Amino acid sequence: MAYSGNPLLASDLLFRPVHSLIDQSQHSRMGATTTNGDGFGIGWYGEGPRPAVFKSIEPAWNDRNLQEVSAQVRTRLLFAHIRASTGTPVQRSNCHPFRFGNWMWMHNGSIAGFHELKRDMLVAVDPSIYPEIEGSTDSEALFFLALTFGLVDDPVTAVARAVGFVERLAAERGVVSPVQMTVATSDGESVWAFRYSSEGKSRTLFYSTDVAQLLLIHPELEVLHQLGDEARLVVSEPLRDLAGAWNEVPESSCVVVRPGEDQFLPFSPAV
Amino acid sequence: MAYSGNPLLASDLLFRPVHSLIDQSQHSRMGATTTNGDGFGIGWYGEGPRPAVFKSIEPAWNDRNLQEVSAQVRTRLLFAHIRASTGTPVQRSNCHPFRFGNWMWMHNGSIAGFHELKRDMLVAVDPSIYPEIEGSTDSEALFFLALTFGLVDDPVTAVARAVGFVERLAAERGVVSPVQMTVATSDGESVWAFRYSSEGKSRTLFYSTDVAQLLLIHPELEVLHQLGDEARLVVSEPLRDLAGAWNEVPESSCVVVRPGEDQFLPFSPAV
Amino acid sequence: MAYSGNPLLASDLLFRPVHSLIDQSQHSRMGATTTNGDGFGIGWYGEGPRPAVFKSIEPAWNDRNLQEVSAQVRTRLLFAHIRASTGTPVQRSNCHPFRFGNWMWMHNGSIAGFHELKRDMLVAVDPSIYPEIEGSTDSEALFFLALTFGLVDDPVTAVARAVGFVERLAAERGVVSPVQMTVATSDGESVWAFRYSSEGKSRTLFYSTDVAQLLLIHPELEVLHQLGDEARLVVSEPLRDLAGAWNEVPESSCVVVRPGEDQFLPFSPAV
Amino acid sequence: MAYSGNPLLASDLLFRPVHSLIDQSQHSRMGATTTNGDGFGIGWYGEGPRPAVFKSIEPAWNDRNLQEVSAQVRTRLLFAHIRASTGTPVQRSNCHPFRFGNWMWMHNGSIAGFHELKRDMLVAVDPSIYPEIEGSTDSEALFFLALTFGLVDDPVTAVARAVGFVERLAAERGVVSPVQMTVATSDGESVWAFRYSSEGKSRTLFYSTDVAQLLLIHPELEVLHQLGDEARLVVSEPLRDLAGAWNEVPESSCVVVRPGEDQFLPFSPAV
Repeated sequence: MAYSGNPLLASDLLFRPVHSLIDQSQHSRMGATTTNGDGFGIGWYGEGPRPAVFKSIEPAWNDRNLQEVSAQVRTRLLFAHIRASTGTPVQRSNCHPFRFGNWMWMHNGSIAGFHELKRDMLVAVDPSIYPEIEGSTDSEALFFLALTFGLVDDPVTAVARAVGFVERLAAERGVVSPVQMTVATSDGESVWAFRYSSEGKSRTLFYSTDVAQLLLIHPELEVLHQLGDEARLVVSEPLRDLAGAWNEVPESSCVVVRPGEDQFLPFSPAV
Repeated sequence: MAYSGNPLLASDLLFRPVHSLIDQSQHSRMGATTTNGDGFGIGWYGEGPRPAVFKSIEPAWNDRNLQEVSAQVRTRLLFAHIRASTGTPVQRSNCHPFRFGNWMWMHNGSIAGFHELKRDMLVAVDPSIYPEIEGSTDSEALFFLALTFGLVDDPVTAVARAVGFVERLAAERGVVSPVQMTVATSDGESVWAFRYSSEGKSRTLFYSTDVAQLLLIHPELEVLHQLGDEARLVVSEPLRDLAGAWNEVPESSCVVVRPGEDQFLPFSPAV
Repeated sequence: MAYSGNPLLASDLLFRPVHSLIDQSQHSRMGATTTNGDGFGIGWYGEGPRPAVFKSIEPAWNDRNLQEVSAQVRTRLLFAHIRASTGTPVQRSNCHPFRFGNWMWMHNGSIAGFHELKRDMLVAVDPSIYPEIEGSTDSEALFFLALTFGLVDDPVTAVARAVGFVERLAAERGVVSPVQMTVATSDGESVWAFRYSSEGKSRTLFYSTDVAQLLLIHPELEVLHQLGDEARLVVSEPLRDLAGAWNEVPESSCVVVRPGEDQFLPFSPAV
Repeated sequence: MAYSGNPLLASDLLFRPVHSLIDQSQHSRMGATTTNGDGFGIGWYGEGPRPAVFKSIEPAWNDRNLQEVSAQVRTRLLFAHIRASTGTPVQRSNCHPFRFGNWMWMHNGSIAGFHELKRDMLVAVDPSIYPEIEGSTDSEALFFLALTFGLVDDPVTAVARAVGFVERLAAERGVVSPVQMTVATSDGESVWAFRYSSEGKSRTLFYSTDVAQLLLIHPELEVLHQLGDEARLVVSEPLRDLAGAWNEVPESSCVVVRPGEDQFLPFSPAV
């Protein structure tokens, strides 16, 4: 889940919606695995330009520190992620979101054949940032490839190049349909959310309707006033069943959430 | 799960059956909660008279230490438990099995209104053993009540008295249907398994068919020879779908697994 | 450590002083045990009247979540504690500070013979608050006794009665010198800090000199201006070696830190 | 600590000597850091050819699972390690001993400038074994370099080549005195223990005196009979203060513990 908008308590975003992130972790309705219990993380912008990250390998639904901390943190930009390991160890350094400087990155999905592709992916990472890699996941490797290909300057192109790189590598090794991803990344101002998979069957991704529009349909909803006009949520699954509130991000596309008008772009790997 | 029989590697019992305990933790088919991710424990008799217990608050399905240790432990009597917290903290001291001297105890279910009954239950515990209570669960409190009422000398009567005590206490406080339990306990020789609930709708409990009989139906099954004639499993859910292998423990009854002929007894709380 | 004063980042209090709390955990110079690695906790007042607590069983000096969270939390009243277990399990529910409503409590020291006294101490706790006890430590038991004896209305008297109760109980059981304590407790406005031991050889406790006075000695210290006139620290060991900055709390006494003039009282158990 | 000899309970090796490994973790007398609380691990040969490893990020001295498991494990070859992180995250995958096939590896010390050298060290690892790297430490990287240079066939030469490779790399980057190590590795039959540092000031390493000889000095020691003639311990610090029991492994040398006569060799990096 990514939230951008008026400063809110993280706990209001995480624990209060009917199908909140926490509820989602035990009864994930649309995810690939029935249970996402292999750690969680939240990242947010608050004091200073660098985002803070709180990550743990305990199941999110029982982590009392998460409840305590999120009830004290007000933020205008929050990422939250619950992990289902696709093979790499359950440890804090493998939990999302990942951070580099003032950037955050989180990924749902996997890179098929990562065990075979890992070395070549990591060798391609810019040697000057390579030592900052802390964990062993495909998701972090993809992040560092995107950084190598210019994420800081042009996020959409950089992710397109990173995905293209992985797909070429996979083709050389006979790995089919290597990339399955919904990715969100932020520099603290904008959020870029991608939905893509090599085989064209990506996991779901939704963005929330513009709050001004939503208020026309649901003027009685107190919470909408609190969110403010710039508020936008990007989620794997709709947080609650509210008519008109959720819109699917189309296959092979990218949403850019930012101050002012948001942007909706097609996305394809760079060849 | 409780196993009694020829010494086997714990990992063979935990990880190799089709619907093993580990698989069960992510896709519990009959349990009350969809996910049992609040810690696990195994207990076994090996070196010395006192059982060893290995317990952790990580989800069982990803605990590498569990995989390592269980592949090295041969035992003739193993308990394994996956916890779904009913409110008390997720911490090692709240994981099952519990131990006192050479006794082990594990419990599926809950005591309704435990928050209100806890103090009186603990005050009733024999002061000489009270300091050995380590956690804060209803399950451990029930264990110490059973010890107080003579578990070591006469397990069936002691459990009947403990359950009766809780039901009387609950009646005084207006708590209805307080006890929901399947319980297994052992002294290292025998295993006592109970199925009972105040409202007569207990969680499932199954025991495995006598191996000699099972071999008549499935002579081709290698694993049965390995188990030996005395082998018996008591489980919440059948480990694999094998015709004739599993028998439901009836409501309000107790199975005593022991060297020689096993025993099947009715169970009711002592009034 | 307890801090009361202008809102500061918790990380500035925890990580920046030369002999900060974190440094203390590895090289405790005056504590009874050489290493306090059995968990830690911080508690602070921020959003809402109830304090937040962040506690973990990892050694404080390597906990990345502590670093992340403390760099985002601004507070005017912070407790921080590093635990050295005196026998009870290392688990989150045994970490300090403990919380009840808007009160926090932390304790350095131990109750001798707690294994024998525990049951009677817990039986004496007001049954209406008994179910809120989460852990198994002597420190939490003492907190709940103090609550039972009126902590919320008159903290000094309540602690005196709790300590007196424990000493009488110990005398009956032949336990000598039962209480060894430095305790800090707060309702979010004031902080009460106690130094007492039955044998009159209490652990050290220091309070920081009034900032206005300290500025007369050290006008060059930038940090003092940031702290503000109301700032007061109460610590087990001086955080840094600054002439005139630290004053020992005398044996058998209590410091009350509060808006306006602070108070220094003698303390003795109620008989 | 490495033990080779008659099958013993791991707990007898870990917890019973006066200055056992566990005691060492809190009061390390000769180590570089005063407290080794960043995780621990044990590895042993038991069922099957592959060693089992039990590793955890909790401080060893309070880990109840370590106490439980080690009291059940009988082994003729045990490694035990307590970690003091030199910067890489505290997580299970960074705990020693590391394992590859039937080989174990543990390392005390560090590689200076690892942040700068890491990428080139990992690129030099044989691509066919590269994906088995699980953590992010210098110690595991050195292990995989040694495997790349032929550890399985000729351990002494392989370690010499790995160390030589790191020293050349460091020289190119202007890192001085890069290697500080005591290393132990085993294939389940023999143990190779190395003491080396680039600057010639290595951490201490001791091996125990031949048991037959030791019995001549201390015929009254029961435990020596239990150990058997082939028993050998290699440790960072003498486990207990027994006259004649401990011998320092000289600078720049290697001890080979194996059935029959043990071997003492000079060690120098391969150029």
